[in-house]
Amino acid sequence: MVKLIATLGTSPGGVFETYTNLINGNYESDNPSKVEIDTIYLIRTLDKDVEFAFKLVKALFICQKIPSEVVEIKINISDITNKQEYEQFKSQIFQKIGKGDFVDFTGGRKAMSVAAAIQALKRDAYLVTTIIPQSEYNRIQNKLKELKNKENEINDILANKNLSLCPELNELIVHGARTILLS
Amino acid sequence: MVKLIATLGTSPGGVFETYTNLINGNYESDNPSKVEIDTIYLIRTLDKDVEFAFKLVKALFICQKIPSEVVEIKINISDITNKQEYEQFKSQIFQKIGKGDFVDFTGGRKAMSVAAAIQALKRDAYLVTTIIPQSEYNRIQNKLKELKNKENEINDILANKNLSLCPELNELIVHGARTILLS
Repeated sequence: MVKLIATLGTSPGGVFETYTNLINGNYESDNPSKVEIDTIYLIRTLDKDVEFAFKLVKALFICQKIPSEVVEIKINISDITNKQEYEQFKSQIFQKIGKGDFVDFTGGRKAMSVAAAIQALKRDAYLVTTIIPQSEYNRIQNKLKELKNKENEINDILANKNLSLCPELNELIVHGARTILLS
Repeated sequence: MVKLIATLGTSPGGVFETYTNLINGNYESDNPSKVEIDTIYLIRTLDKDVEFAFKLVKALFICQKIPSEVVEIKINISDITNKQEYEQFKSQIFQKIGKGDFVDFTGGRKAMSVAAAIQALKRDAYLVTTIIPQSEYNRIQNKLKELKNKENEINDILANKNLSLCPELNELIVHGARTILLS
């Protein structure tokens, strides 16, 4: 059993698709096999929009009845705007990565992706990314705007109280997302 | 004398600001000093919008009368959409980086930034990025749209025939862009 560790930005960022593709062995690699993932770590800053994106991803995993645990790793910064914030992000993500884990740098700021990738290689973890088709990217952005007004219903899903928003959340799933094992 | 090697996407991406901040010693680091850069390599794909962004950056350096040489390094792909394209990008950028060079991953796709950063560390080069304020990002996007219709005037600058578009091109320069030396 390994962990999937993903950087998260202001949009769901493809981590659900990465997870699904990895556990189904449906990814680009010389020798793809089904990956057994027990925990998903979502690395996020304290930014309000990023917090909302975390809720969406967590709710989507609940709607899809995924048994793996989804855990948020909060980095105590609102963005990477200087060297100290970069180092803090880099050091905190390092502590979470184990040998053989999968690190997905698809979501979040570029400096976050770079920090995650560098630390994945140091830890001898696998580096993955998921390519989201441009047309889907635009569709998801529009869907995100619609969901901004439905935070109460999203909280209901997170509390397992009322899953009625699930059909709409499922529309966040990217069609044709391809996952690549880079190293 | 060292090189500045920058990944380029569909927008100018901050490389002019990185260059200016480095040569002026105006960057975040424990011990910032003025960097002597003789050549700027812009790593780009064959994508049409990326080619246009290259022309803009090259023209901007001409307008600003920068003596350093600006060279495009064309990677023979239109995007990174699979592992082979990632490896090709990674291997071609590796050949261009020397020890002590500066690698700027601010522009281009996330997978390009990650590939550039990994190779910079392997080569013992410096890793830099430039933070563009969000408000400036939106302003630059609008400016880019306006410049799309002025390719002839941009070509005139590149041919050193007519520099009358320079005042408009200078508006692409980001105000308040901060460069960080990451490692």
